[in-house]
This record gives sequence, structure tokens and C-alpha cells, in this order.
Amino acid sequence: MKKKRDDAFLRNPVESLRIDGCSDVGDLLKRMGQTAFQGKNLALAADIWADMLTNGATIFFGLAGAMVPAGMRRLVAYLLQNRLVDCVVSTGANLFHDCHETIGELHYQGHHTADDVVLREKGIDRIYDVFAHDWAFLKVDKFIADFGTSLGSRRLNTREFLYLLGKRLTEKGKTTGILTSAYEAKVPIYCPAISDSSIGIALAVASCNGKVIPQLDVIADVVESAHLVADAADCTGVIYVAGGTPKNFIQQAEVTAPLIGRPAEGHSYAIQLSVDPPHWGGLSGCTFEEAQSWGKVAKKARKVTVYCDATISLPLVVHALAQRHSDLIASRKPPKMKLKWPKQ
Amino acid sequence: MKKKRDDAFLRNPVESLRIDGCSDVGDLLKRMGQTAFQGKNLALAADIWADMLTNGATIFFGLAGAMVPAGMRRLVAYLLQNRLVDCVVSTGANLFHDCHETIGELHYQGHHTADDVVLREKGIDRIYDVFAHDWAFLKVDKFIADFGTSLGSRRLNTREFLYLLGKRLTEKGKTTGILTSAYEAKVPIYCPAISDSSIGIALAVASCNGKVIPQLDVIADVVESAHLVADAADCTGVIYVAGGTPKNFIQQAEVTAPLIGRPAEGHSYAIQLSVDPPHWGGLSGCTFEEAQSWGKVAKKARKVTVYCDATISLPLVVHALAQRHSDLIASRKPPKMKLKWPKQ
Amino acid sequence: MKKKRDDAFLRNPVESLRIDGCSDVGDLLKRMGQTAFQGKNLALAADIWADMLTNGATIFFGLAGAMVPAGMRRLVAYLLQNRLVDCVVSTGANLFHDCHETIGELHYQGHHTADDVVLREKGIDRIYDVFAHDWAFLKVDKFIADFGTSLGSRRLNTREFLYLLGKRLTEKGKTTGILTSAYEAKVPIYCPAISDSSIGIALAVASCNGKVIPQLDVIADVVESAHLVADAADCTGVIYVAGGTPKNFIQQAEVTAPLIGRPAEGHSYAIQLSVDPPHWGGLSGCTFEEAQSWGKVAKKARKVTVYCDATISLPLVVHALAQRHSDLIASRKPPKMKLKWPKQ
Amino acid sequence: MKKKRDDAFLRNPVESLRIDGCSDVGDLLKRMGQTAFQGKNLALAADIWADMLTNGATIFFGLAGAMVPAGMRRLVAYLLQNRLVDCVVSTGANLFHDCHETIGELHYQGHHTADDVVLREKGIDRIYDVFAHDWAFLKVDKFIADFGTSLGSRRLNTREFLYLLGKRLTEKGKTTGILTSAYEAKVPIYCPAISDSSIGIALAVASCNGKVIPQLDVIADVVESAHLVADAADCTGVIYVAGGTPKNFIQQAEVTAPLIGRPAEGHSYAIQLSVDPPHWGGLSGCTFEEAQSWGKVAKKARKVTVYCDATISLPLVVHALAQRHSDLIASRKPPKMKLKWPKQ
Repeated sequence: MKKKRDDAFLRNPVESLRIDGCSDVGDLLKRMGQTAFQGKNLALAADIWADMLTNGATIFFGLAGAMVPAGMRRLVAYLLQNRLVDCVVSTGANLFHDCHETIGELHYQGHHTADDVVLREKGIDRIYDVFAHDWAFLKVDKFIADFGTSLGSRRLNTREFLYLLGKRLTEKGKTTGILTSAYEAKVPIYCPAISDSSIGIALAVASCNGKVIPQLDVIADVVESAHLVADAADCTGVIYVAGGTPKNFIQQAEVTAPLIGRPAEGHSYAIQLSVDPPHWGGLSGCTFEEAQSWGKVAKKARKVTVYCDATISLPLVVHALAQRHSDLIASRKPPKMKLKWPKQ
Repeated sequence: MKKKRDDAFLRNPVESLRIDGCSDVGDLLKRMGQTAFQGKNLALAADIWADMLTNGATIFFGLAGAMVPAGMRRLVAYLLQNRLVDCVVSTGANLFHDCHETIGELHYQGHHTADDVVLREKGIDRIYDVFAHDWAFLKVDKFIADFGTSLGSRRLNTREFLYLLGKRLTEKGKTTGILTSAYEAKVPIYCPAISDSSIGIALAVASCNGKVIPQLDVIADVVESAHLVADAADCTGVIYVAGGTPKNFIQQAEVTAPLIGRPAEGHSYAIQLSVDPPHWGGLSGCTFEEAQSWGKVAKKARKVTVYCDATISLPLVVHALAQRHSDLIASRKPPKMKLKWPKQ
Repeated sequence: MKKKRDDAFLRNPVESLRIDGCSDVGDLLKRMGQTAFQGKNLALAADIWADMLTNGATIFFGLAGAMVPAGMRRLVAYLLQNRLVDCVVSTGANLFHDCHETIGELHYQGHHTADDVVLREKGIDRIYDVFAHDWAFLKVDKFIADFGTSLGSRRLNTREFLYLLGKRLTEKGKTTGILTSAYEAKVPIYCPAISDSSIGIALAVASCNGKVIPQLDVIADVVESAHLVADAADCTGVIYVAGGTPKNFIQQAEVTAPLIGRPAEGHSYAIQLSVDPPHWGGLSGCTFEEAQSWGKVAKKARKVTVYCDATISLPLVVHALAQRHSDLIASRKPPKMKLKWPKQ
Repeated sequence: MKKKRDDAFLRNPVESLRIDGCSDVGDLLKRMGQTAFQGKNLALAADIWADMLTNGATIFFGLAGAMVPAGMRRLVAYLLQNRLVDCVVSTGANLFHDCHETIGELHYQGHHTADDVVLREKGIDRIYDVFAHDWAFLKVDKFIADFGTSLGSRRLNTREFLYLLGKRLTEKGKTTGILTSAYEAKVPIYCPAISDSSIGIALAVASCNGKVIPQLDVIADVVESAHLVADAADCTGVIYVAGGTPKNFIQQAEVTAPLIGRPAEGHSYAIQLSVDPPHWGGLSGCTFEEAQSWGKVAKKARKVTVYCDATISLPLVVHALAQRHSDLIASRKPPKMKLKWPKQ
């Protein structure tokens, strides 16, 4: 057994990692929590997430990066179905690619050194080492354009629009995706930059073709998300996969809440699975310490940044939660949210 | 004089950089063009930008990252006033912080290792090594809320909204900023994620306070930007400061154009001043080669990525253009754009 | 079941990752191999390593970064004891910190935002989020200085020196570390920058104190490593944890071999667990494609770079090997190496 | 004129950068000093370097990364000739490539997306976007092997070896390089990982061919560099181009000095021009704050890290010094160093 020094700074020895031939991911992550650098942070992320689940936090999940093409769609669906998260803010692209798979199209394993001029000639679009065919995307475009047209000129915020899109996809009989799982679990999804994606393109093309499409009320999203934060009574947690608009949108909800008369003292739990360093000064890479100066993250928040591609960190953290905290997950009662859900 | 090998692969020797006591930035950048790595790429960026100016390209400029708090506001205003760019796509934050300075508030030099809990207590918000006071931001919030309220319930795309905001700021007598320069030069600015910023917060708060605010038509932005690209007759250039929604929005315009019946074969010139590597798979870091597979960038485009913080690369490239290509800049006739500009 | 297109570019669908409550690391990694980005690359690294073991490669392992303070010491010891690697090239620091733990001193979990001036006053040295006490390092310094002095003025290459150091540590009765395991398994360890570490400091201090210390023959390391490569009959594999001198040293062995009359056509298998992107131009971040131009990596080599902190990637890959390939590991016969081992 | 708040945290406004058609690099950098992020840090680097020159610091310069192939050779030579630095610690590669150019061989501008298998067939070696021909490197190998052989079995530390190499190169009539300038200016160059480079390869090949080569005493380097630091009477400055062994070697000199009875309280000025973030935990990316915990950097040191490729940052900082501080440079008296210089 290792002796411990009683010095306040030298309490917890780094425990050198043993190789264990039969341990599961949860076991390994626990042991990585006794090491250092990003391995330790990864373990800490699972611990903080478990704390959120235990302590009744309303959990906001920001989803940026090309996570769906990279194979994270079912994993995110799992988070929604099992209510490991309570509200999603996503880029448009992840939701478009979710539709793509839900209606039966595929992404393919390719290679990042492929000859892009050749790919262009073959109608194949590349996302780093993922390939997909142009015509498949056009099919999804058409699905979304038809869906949008079917809604007519209604004014909807993006949550309402995406809820109805989830409903439409569900009616087609597919239920393993993000939008369909969110629809079924009534987990709100916001998409602040929805026009900046193929969803936006599809609606724009419908509009150019003379169709009447819904009016997307993006400011209503801001109001609503601030109320969600305010209603959570200062116990909110955030999990950011990469940065971008989802991270900023969730961060800003905390500073908007006081402006609409609902005190908020910053998110109580904060995890980011990111690769952007802080020194470029942008929001995507900023630390949770910086966020504390704004009151976006609480002074005493439990917080961690794991510098690691989320195609590695997210599967590990979620598997660890599923393996080590299955009871906690099964018994969790998600927070009630005052949201009206539209009918078709 | 150095001998050159006639081998096709070994034509241009790296010329080791001499220190010259009196050269200006343009001279230095030209000589850096004979070196390698990112120094060479920086020089290439200035060359490609000059090519855009020479060859009548419609130049799209994507502005992400916290560039205005970091002191790049006048530089961007210079680009607009002198028409080194023809269309801007920006994050909301850069435009909010532009308002902030235009109405007389300041950003301050701070330090990235400051104690954020202390800053919080003093009401100071940190952006890496920049500080600003909360109350100053609230003042800008109020300005924008009042402006939005004054517009009533009109339906505007973000370009129209921002044009009118530029007009309002100009009427206050300040003309050195981004929005005011864009207003005066009639350079369109789009902000696809406008709700995801303090502009969105200000409008949301006004709305919560019972005010009627404009309906921001974000899909109309998509239609309009695709037309701008299509009208440019396949001679478009793009310059991305960081990635985010501005980069994606400009890239997607090129793939939307064909869908609305206007052929487009990808941007002809492409520069990105970025720090995101491609291997995380996200759009912000993706290469222009990847963009070629989608047809977003033309097969034979001149293109360069400069991996460097834009607070370094942008001043150098723009100074080099101003010093080496003043005639070109003075004589440039910006492309005509079919845009209707709203009146207050 | 998913349909597959017969298009050569679209053969293997990305399989969206399912959460499985009870899978071990090996299972998870296998499934990550059907995703994309760095998650896929991580799985590929385990596959390629397994290939090396199957196909009789002589496996070179480069160890840079502060892996031992970060808790990777036993894991590396496992690699040596079970002959998952055949030759190690390390920074001096990792070996010094291995001595530190072998003689009973500890590293501690700290925090990267600690106040370093306070740490200085308390005599605590920080390595990102790891702490250790100055006096403990001085104790190790003394151990190494005494060991060096005991050798006298002998001329040794670094492998011989480190072998004898492993022997000395073993005599103290500790056998779970890197140097001790290498000693017992007769795995050569080279340390090309040995002077650039606390091992170098300890020997320098002994020398200043008038002690006679061994002459470290660093050029003999180069000769010997080239012979190891040449003797491996063109079936060598390399695994780089970070870059630095270990990566370069192993790469250069492949180009040295032909110069001493032993043809070599590049390493046949190549894995790097790294975080340095290629665009800074340095050796640490260079791709294996670049290495192919030099002949350091074979034209048809199986190769992968996993952009991920090795405190995450290394435990995962090694656990996956241990779980999925235990038979392969148990039955592997390490290559014979023509090395003379010194006696004290 | 801008008003300033008297709040201690909000003293210095960020001054938005104006484009000035005729300013030189020194002017621009001065104005960048009033901005933020890495642009400000770049300006600060020039200021701190000027402080070192003013205040009689002994200036240590660490040179890693492939700076010479990238065109930085004459710039480094300028630093030596004008004594902007007093001691160089370099990777072997930079010195090998310096020899390459000094004996008349060239590096060429290539492209990082070249087909490396084709390059291999043509005998062209790639360093990111730089090409060079194998046979040219072999010529340099031979030059170094012959030089090494001419020295016989003498025991030399790397500074002595490299001084004599500079002398030999000078005798061939070339004087614009690093080794030749260091020879003429009697600036010591250390190369702690000399075996890990083509210099090491060349000597190893000579040795295999039965030649007697010098014994390189790498521990003597450690002793000597600690004395240099100790003799500088606590006024030392460090400038790191990238990290690697040069950074560590210079850092460790400061902790070695007290161990040989010469108090040292850390370097007083510290600049790093780097791209490695701290969160991977390695020495290359560690902050100067971390270095303070070890006593490698003084508690009150002036220090800055500029996150930027040195092919951009180094030319800018050195031009700025040359333009704004020519008097300072002309009048500087370099510190006296107690070093014995060998004769051939």
C-alpha cells in the first residue's frame, strides 16, 4: 500500500495504470481517474455527469461537430431515450444527417487522403474520412422541403419545427434516431443556426420553387431557452460536444435569464468534450473559468474540459455511465419543463 | 546566384529570409513567400486576395472568432470602405461588439490568467485576455432592444436588419465601425446565427417586455446569398477568418445555387485564416480540398489555408495588400449586386 | 440489414455506435472501428498492433511526453513483460520518473490552475496537473549519481547504461517499472537525449563533485539501432507515443540501415498516438505519408495516426489488445536480437 | 480621444487596429501591442527581447522545428552576427540542414499534398511543403563524416564539436550560415540530441566504415550550460522557437546550477514562439507559469508565449527589433563567457 503525505498539495498519488484483461469501460475509466492529463479528465467527466443525474439537474447538451456522419447518432438517441440529457442544442448539420440515416440513407467509411477531384466527378461528398453520395443528400433535401411545405406559413420556433419533423420521421416507422427519439421523449431540440445547414437549404429551395414554408422564429428560441434555465432553479448542468453555436446558445441562456427577471447564478455542472484550446480567444475554446467571469458557470460549479475528439470521449463516457450507473439512469426522473408541443 | 535544378519537383529554392532594417510589411510578406510552412502560406494569402481584386471576383468574407474585442474592428471597416470584400457573413458577437465600440464603449486589455471569480464580483466579463464591464454590455443591449422595437413587426432578413442597424448607428454620428461602414458602402452583412448572440438576447428581452420586434427571416438569407453567388457568374472568392457559421454559410451558398437553377462550379479563390486542423472532422477545420468534393470550391481554384491566429495573419495580409496593391485597391470596381435596401 | 452499394468508394457503411451495458474495452474498440474520425483510428491502431504481433515484426516503441508522471508506467512495464514491444526509445524524463516510482517515491494528482508561485515556495514541482516534491527528485538524483559513480569511467551506449540501471533497481527488489522490466525481459532501451533530463543532471552533478562517471557513447546507439532494423529483415513495426527524439530516432534507423550496407525499405507497420498536427512542419507532427517519401515507412505499410492524448489512447489500445488478443500475446515469440548485455 | 476608466482592471483600452499604408514591421507590431490575443503577445515578445538586450541578460536561444529547411537560416545567422542571442541550443536537424545550405545545396518549395510514393521513387524527401534531393543529403553526410574522421578520437562536448564544424565550413569560404556565424562570433551552440539527427547518422556511418570518430561528451554539455547560467548572475533570458530538447535543456540549466553550488532563481525573461498547447502535459507545451513552480523561470520574470508558427512570428519579431531598436543592437556588449575554444 502506498503511503500518503499529509501535505495538502500532495494527498492523492497518481496510481499507475494496471492492465486488466477483463475489465469493462466503466472499470477502466474509474482507474483512469487515478492518473493524470486528459485520461483523468475523461474519468472526471463521467463522475460529473453522474452527479448531474443524482442531483436533479436539468441537463443541456450542445452537439456540434460532424458527430452524426461519424457514427454518434444512436449514442445521442440513447441519451435522449434514457434521459441522460433534458434539452439538446444542435447544429443543423447533425440533424440533417440524422434525417439522412433515419430515412434509410447511409454514410460510408472513406479516407481523408482521397482525391477530392475524383470524388467530385463521382458525386461523392467527403466529411474528413466519411463519404456520402450527392443524390442521397438530394433525397433528404426533398424530404425536408416536402415536410416544410406541408406545414404552410405557420410561425414556429426551431424546437417546434424539429419536434414536428421528429413526428413526421416517426410516422415513417423509424425510431432509432435523434429527432425521432427526441419526439418520443419530448426532449426539446433547438437549432439556433438552422438556416446555416442543409435544412436551411431545403427550405430555401422550396421557397424559391414558390412553396409556402414556415416562419422560423429564432428569437423565440432565445426566450424559451432562458425560461428553461430559469425554471431549473439554479440547478442546471451542461455538456458540450465541441463548441460552436450550441455551446454559446446554452451559455447565453444563463445570462439571459436574469434579464427577463429570473435570477440565475450560472450552470452548476459543466463538461466540455472539446479540442479547441483557449488561446485563440474564441467562444468554442474558452474555458469554464472564463465563463465564470460572465456568470455563465457558477462560482462553485463542478467542471471539466476533456481535450479529446468526441468520437473517442463521448462513447467512453456514455459507456462508463451505462455500466457503472445503470440504477441511477433507470430511476432518474427528468425535470418537468413548461413547454407547449405543437400538433401537426 | 543560386542554381536551379530543372527537375519538375525542384524548381523554386527556398530563399532563406534576410533581415532588412527598413522594409515595410508588404516587402517582408513578399520575401516570406519564398520560404515555407505558414510563413509562405501567409504570403500566398495576400497574393490570392490580390488576384481576386484583379479578376473581378465577388468576394465573400466570413468573420468568426472574437475579432472585434481583439481589436480588428477598424481593420474590417477598412475592408468594407475600400471594397476589398463585397459581402460579409459574421457571427452575431462580432456585430454586437462593433455596436459596443461604435456607441462609445470600450474593450480593455486584460490577462488570460486573471482570477475569474474576482472578475465576476467586479462585474467584469473576460474574453481570453480582453476585459469589458457588464454594465457597458447592458447599455448596448438596450440600444439594440430600442432599435429593434422601433422597427415594429416587419419581416426582415438579417442583411436588411443589420443594414438598418448600421443606418441607426450612423445617425448617431459614428462612422468608423463595421456596421456603419457596411451601411455606407452598401456591403451586405448576413448573420445566420443572429439569435445566438447578444443581439438575439437584446431582442428576446424586448419581446419578453411586451415589445413588438421584427421577424427575422433566416431562410430568406439562404435564398439571397445563393443568388449573390449565382449572379457572380462563377467568379467568386472567399476569405474565412476562423470557421463557424460564416464559413459554412458561404460554402453552402455555392451548393444552393444549382438547386435554384443557377449553375455554380465552386468558388474560384479561397483563403482561410484559421487554426482548426482538419483531423477533428468538423466544418471549421475542413480543408478546401474536402470542399472541392462537394463542389463548394472549384477544381482549379487558387486556395490556401494559413494556420495562424487571425489577430496576426489578418493585419499582415491587409497591410501587405494596402502597401503593395494600393493602385489595384483604388481602381477596383466592386461587382453589382441585385439587392433591395430597406428604408427605415 | 443494411444494403451496401457496390460503388468502390461506398463499400463500408459507418455503423452508428450502440450503447452496450456490459461490453469490455476490446468490444467497444471493435465497434468504434466501424465509426469515423479519431474513434475509428483508435480501433485501427489496435488492429495494426495485432498485425505486428501476428506477423513477426520487430516492434519499436517511442515514448515521449510526460507519460510516467501521468500514470502510464505500469502499462509500459506490461508491454515489456509481455513483449508487445521489442525495443524502446524514450526521453530521459520518462526513465527518470520511472526510477522515482521504482525507488518508492510518488507523483500526486494536482491541478493545472494551481498558483505556481505558491508551489515554488512549498518546493512542489508541477507537470500540468501532476505534483511532486523537490526533495523526492533530489533523492532520485542522488540514486542515479551514485549508480553512475559506481560504474566508473566505462564507455557505454545508453542501452547498456540503462540496462545496468535496471539491474541496479531490480537488486533493490522492485520489479514493476519500466527499467526493471526491460532488464528482466532484455528489451533494449535507448535514450538519445539522455543528457537532456534529470539523468543527465544527476551525472553532471556527480562529475562536478569530482566523481568519475561513464562515458555515454551516443553515436554507438545510432549504429546499434540501425543494425536492429537491418536484422529485422524488413519486417519492423513502430509505435510512437507523441513525437520528439524517440520518433525521430526510430525513423532515422530505417534510413541509416542502407548506409551501413543493409537494405531496408521502411517500417512495415506504423502507429502514432499523437496530438501534433502536420502543418507546423516539424518532425513530431509529420505524417507517415511524409515518412514514405524518405523511405522511413514502407510504401505499402499499414499505418495510422490517432490524434488523441496518449493518456487516453494508450490505455484503450493496450486493454483492447489484452482483451481480444490474449492468445496472440501469450504465444508470441519475440525476435532474436544480436545484442551484448554488459555485466556490472 | 478615448476616456479611460480608473478601475484597476480596465486601464488600457484595446485600440482597434488602423490600416496604415506605409508603416514598417516595427510600427505595425507596436500597434498590435494595443490589441489582444496572439497579435498582442507577438508585440510583447519584441518588447521583452528588447528588455533583455537593454538589461544585460545572457540570452539563451532554443531552436527546434524544421526552421532551416523552412528558410530561417539567415535570420538565425543574423541573430548570432548581431548578438541578439548569446547561446544557442539546437536540434541536430537544424544544424545538419544549415551545413546543407552552407556547402551549396538547396531546399525547394514543394507542396504538402504531394504524392509521397512518387517522391520516394524520384529520391525526393519531403519536409511538409519543402523538398530536397536524397543525393544532396548524402553529400552533406559525407562532408560531416569526413570532418568527424579528421578530428580523430578526441573527446569533445557538442559545443566544441560544432565550433570546429563551423570553422571547417568557414574555411570553405561560406559565412552566412548558423554554424559559421556562431564560429565567427564565438557563440556557443549545444546540441543535446546530436545523435538523433543526420549528424549522428553521418558519424555512425563513418564509425561503421572503420573510421575513428570523436567521443561526444554529452554530459559535459550539461555541466557547461549550468555554469553559463550560474555565471550570468541571475540575469538570463530565454527564447524558445518551438519546444523539444532545446527548451528542456535550457530550462534544466537553471535547476542544475544550484546543484553545483551556484544559486540561480530562474530565468528573468522568457519568450516562447510555440504552437503546443499546455493541456497535453508535455514539456514542449508547458507554460512559463509551470516553469516557475520548478524555479526554472523567476517569480517576477517578464514572460510571454506566442502561439504561432515560428515561420511567421520569428521574422516579425526580429524585423521589429531591427527596425525599432537598431541603436540598442549596435551598442550591445554581449556578456563574457568563460569558455575554452578548441583549436583544430
